[in-house]
Amino acid sequence: MTYDVDPLAPHHDGSPAYVGASAPALGERVELRVRVPHRPDGTPGARAVVLRAVRDGEPAITPAEQAAGDDAGAWWSVTLALVNPVTSYRFLVSNGPADYRWLTATGVHARDVTDAGDFLISTEHRVPCWVADQVAYQVFPDRFERTETGAPVPEWARPVAWDDAVVHRGPEVPFQWYGGTLDGVAARIDHLERLGATLLYLTPVFEAGSTHRYDAVSFERVDPLLGGDAALERLADTLHERGLRLVGDLTTNHTGDRHDWFRTAAADPASVERAFYRFEPDGSYASWLGIASLPKLDHASAELARRLYDGPDSVVARWLRRGLDGWRVDVANMTGRLGAEDRAHAVAATTRRTMAAESPDAWLLAEHGHDATGDLRGAGWHGTMDYAGFTRPLWCWLNGGSPDGPGLPHGLDYLGLPVDIPVLPAERAVATMREVHGAIPFTVWQSGTNHLDSHDTPRFRTVTGGGTSGGTDLVGAGRPGHLVGLALQMTMPGVPVVFMGDEIGLTAVDGEHARTPYPWHDEQSWDAPTLAAYREWIELRHRHVALRRGGLRWLHAHGDAMTFLREHPDQTLLVHATRAAGPEVRLPLAALGPDPVVTTLVGPPARVVADELVLPGEGPAASVHLVSSGGPGS
Amino acid sequence: MTYDVDPLAPHHDGSPAYVGASAPALGERVELRVRVPHRPDGTPGARAVVLRAVRDGEPAITPAEQAAGDDAGAWWSVTLALVNPVTSYRFLVSNGPADYRWLTATGVHARDVTDAGDFLISTEHRVPCWVADQVAYQVFPDRFERTETGAPVPEWARPVAWDDAVVHRGPEVPFQWYGGTLDGVAARIDHLERLGATLLYLTPVFEAGSTHRYDAVSFERVDPLLGGDAALERLADTLHERGLRLVGDLTTNHTGDRHDWFRTAAADPASVERAFYRFEPDGSYASWLGIASLPKLDHASAELARRLYDGPDSVVARWLRRGLDGWRVDVANMTGRLGAEDRAHAVAATTRRTMAAESPDAWLLAEHGHDATGDLRGAGWHGTMDYAGFTRPLWCWLNGGSPDGPGLPHGLDYLGLPVDIPVLPAERAVATMREVHGAIPFTVWQSGTNHLDSHDTPRFRTVTGGGTSGGTDLVGAGRPGHLVGLALQMTMPGVPVVFMGDEIGLTAVDGEHARTPYPWHDEQSWDAPTLAAYREWIELRHRHVALRRGGLRWLHAHGDAMTFLREHPDQTLLVHATRAAGPEVRLPLAALGPDPVVTTLVGPPARVVADELVLPGEGPAASVHLVSSGGPGS
Repeated sequence: MTYDVDPLAPHHDGSPAYVGASAPALGERVELRVRVPHRPDGTPGARAVVLRAVRDGEPAITPAEQAAGDDAGAWWSVTLALVNPVTSYRFLVSNGPADYRWLTATGVHARDVTDAGDFLISTEHRVPCWVADQVAYQVFPDRFERTETGAPVPEWARPVAWDDAVVHRGPEVPFQWYGGTLDGVAARIDHLERLGATLLYLTPVFEAGSTHRYDAVSFERVDPLLGGDAALERLADTLHERGLRLVGDLTTNHTGDRHDWFRTAAADPASVERAFYRFEPDGSYASWLGIASLPKLDHASAELARRLYDGPDSVVARWLRRGLDGWRVDVANMTGRLGAEDRAHAVAATTRRTMAAESPDAWLLAEHGHDATGDLRGAGWHGTMDYAGFTRPLWCWLNGGSPDGPGLPHGLDYLGLPVDIPVLPAERAVATMREVHGAIPFTVWQSGTNHLDSHDTPRFRTVTGGGTSGGTDLVGAGRPGHLVGLALQMTMPGVPVVFMGDEIGLTAVDGEHARTPYPWHDEQSWDAPTLAAYREWIELRHRHVALRRGGLRWLHAHGDAMTFLREHPDQTLLVHATRAAGPEVRLPLAALGPDPVVTTLVGPPARVVADELVLPGEGPAASVHLVSSGGPGS
Repeated sequence: MTYDVDPLAPHHDGSPAYVGASAPALGERVELRVRVPHRPDGTPGARAVVLRAVRDGEPAITPAEQAAGDDAGAWWSVTLALVNPVTSYRFLVSNGPADYRWLTATGVHARDVTDAGDFLISTEHRVPCWVADQVAYQVFPDRFERTETGAPVPEWARPVAWDDAVVHRGPEVPFQWYGGTLDGVAARIDHLERLGATLLYLTPVFEAGSTHRYDAVSFERVDPLLGGDAALERLADTLHERGLRLVGDLTTNHTGDRHDWFRTAAADPASVERAFYRFEPDGSYASWLGIASLPKLDHASAELARRLYDGPDSVVARWLRRGLDGWRVDVANMTGRLGAEDRAHAVAATTRRTMAAESPDAWLLAEHGHDATGDLRGAGWHGTMDYAGFTRPLWCWLNGGSPDGPGLPHGLDYLGLPVDIPVLPAERAVATMREVHGAIPFTVWQSGTNHLDSHDTPRFRTVTGGGTSGGTDLVGAGRPGHLVGLALQMTMPGVPVVFMGDEIGLTAVDGEHARTPYPWHDEQSWDAPTLAAYREWIELRHRHVALRRGGLRWLHAHGDAMTFLREHPDQTLLVHATRAAGPEVRLPLAALGPDPVVTTLVGPPARVVADELVLPGEGPAASVHLVSSGGPGS
């Protein structure tokens, strides 16, 4: 085995082209289909395909039947009964005694593998239908657009001018107050619409003691600095009138130490709020990463659950009624986890239940910085911010190093690790993507979010070589790598999230640095080609159902190039991305189905030569091609 | 990446040479050590080693420090606080910006990987100290040795003579009654002792409706056909007097349909026993794999728990008081799993708690036929029958095919899969071993059992080429492969279990066929060299603590050869196994530590040539070598 991809490998995934039901219920039966391309010599790729599905803890074996065949391969089909809430399955594919292969969600393995990469169907993962069609835009409210609110400036806030440089290291960081507001956001919805965004994700808006507001002093009041509750409702109404959605940001892991609950808890050991936190006999208490100003919530308390996430009177439910279409949950990976106790799955499931009761269409997205796969089996979070399966491997593949010279590291740490961001070839980046996504149901992958960066990371433009000096002064320098990343963000499963300012080419060396006040008044600093590219790629995603809802089938991943199909019953697209110029990539036509006709939609054109598809060697570049079946008589 | 092993890879595992505490408690701190051999050019293998440990759901980063260095490499050390019952951790190893490697329990990965292969420490996995020192002998009571009991022969039993061929297909299989007894077993303890076995594992002994007795009619009564309760107590006493231990076999997943509980449940819908099973309104009920004679237990019933496994009056506790030292739990993978409900972990944890209260030294072993890793994190089963991580990969590597001709498959299915047993090279077999064992704490691996075969599988002798005709008529034909497998069974982590008769070279084509009456009276049919080899390899294991308690570090795995170290603070052994003759295997001496002196204990000798250890190319063969440090002044 190598990490390289075999374009003629048998394929299955959880998308509609391969699974006969999109949201099957417990007890239902679903049809599973496997595509087995012919070998290069035209002989069948398999003489037997057998389903192995775990049922009540025991693997059950069911032979698949060859349902259809064509010049390029065969379709095999088998029915799976969903006996358990989560069913784990895989296929044995064999051509005879010397051929022993397992097809799992991580690929084909010519040996026994653990169940960690098995395909998964969850009858409890019922994501709202609209989610997969979104393109989100992330706003850090203090830094997008200001309006006058007349609210008194609190003691912690250090007012600065919109043009002042962002202080991104040292104690001043969280207190530099630019004065962005929710009415300011509402005034700029045109920008989101022109970009093609369909959903606004706001980092926290509750009253807090900093501009990031992850240290809430209340979950009851939108910060008056942002315009208060009424401004949030106005923003939600405006968005909804224009057909956009709104997702809020809730900190279920901790509060600020000036939160109403914590003040009561600290002042009165007999208070009910005392049990919302984990106090020691000496008065110390558990806190987020040991930071005393962020006391950790103790989810053993049923009263805390009732107030925060359990039932119609909870914070979670009430703000859905006041205009939110979903929640992004901060450090979901830590929520409910404290020493000997692990209530994470219970908190997630209860939050989901509360939301579903309030609004069956609400979306629940979890933040996880590392491996979330153990928390994503169905009844809890709908999906996660896919740092592990998208952002990290993409960074490693498109890491452009320092603008000071080729091959020089840019000196950014790798998302908290004390090493520079690695530079990895496509086959390794793709191996990570496949491993992460192979550990969750396909529908969960589809319900998570793909970020090139966020308010917690350096800007992607900087990662791809656009410099480390901050601001917009290196516009264009990292454009090629940035736009290859953009192409992948807009063509892969998962909801793309554009962090405000990425679309005009902003750079930044860390998350605090990335919280750039939006340069509305300095439009000549914007990178117009980058903005145009964002509009084009987002439009492409909206126009093609295969990009939003199709499966993902890898055809090639080596060095500077990666290639995949997005397959949907209504259409198939091929995406080819390169980070540098290199040789053409040649793929056997049989990988694309019978008599394929390939039409280039975007980017350098592909061509068919004899029985091969030849993909252009240009780079950095990204191209998208429609694959249709010429078929007999077409 | 390939599956091949790098002998100079950094190494860590959960054994005492690498972890500073053997059974740390929650809240304790343990020292973790990493060995980083120098590169072939003598330069350090790493300039930085960083611990990444997940704490309350979030990865925490701690740099390791270089604690010691020598001519061959360096030791790095870091302290880990055990904040959660299970801690998952890994090491970042780097030599500079272009070198990004994760060291996990599955090996070294030059890319990001999910947490599935992270090292694990469980503060809840407290296995009795004696377990790792055992060599077990498995007896199927009806077929080992008979004595007269005078018990009436029940209606289901078809008495046959000891010499009659085992019927292994068709309806007669479970009823062929040879009449073995527990006093018969007691009369043959000499055989176990001479072999070197220290523990007797008996398949079920409770009264039942078949000779396999997995269809219990009671958990209260030892089958009178076996000699009844008194015979079990006599056997336990005899074993204990002679320093051997006894493990029983309990079916927690189902009972027979003639079980006292089921009769009551079926007859009286108002009975408390009705809730022990899952009846449908039409009177049908859930059963094991749909076989109506084996109704499945419904672990939602607290009364069932009380009777079977929860508390001092339970079956589990009472038979410990009457002489058992532990339980093997049948189809543990299914126990408590039924449709929408999954109580498997609760049943396992409660069973463990009950046993610990009765006897802190009792061992709880689970049967799993496939991937048990998700059930082995600490508070439940101590370990599992390691079909997935030992038996299956070993079979694939040592599969000898049919005795009818080289390269012909022998036509045995692969443990329930509708394909012949694969033939795989060492690198693939070892990749499976590493993946399975990488998903569980080291102490759990050590507390499971390694089987070449069992009463549920073909005999290993047949798998290795010893024929498919059954009985003892092909003695010797599969000996070389058999003995290589034996060597691996006796030199790897995990308790070796010898299935009665393997030690004299018996063959069999399936599990029913393998339930051979022991040919005591036909000693000339025994394969004396095989029996001698069993005694030698078992004695070798008893003599070397590294084989019983050392870590496992892979040095080589390719094609026909595999090589590993068993490292313990008191000694290091090197094991080299080949399935065929081939080229010598050359390993850099630096892999063995500073100034290694290599002394061959068993098998073809190794020699040192310049800076390489040269392992013999003979095969099939197995050799064991003591590795000591010549060191300065030694």
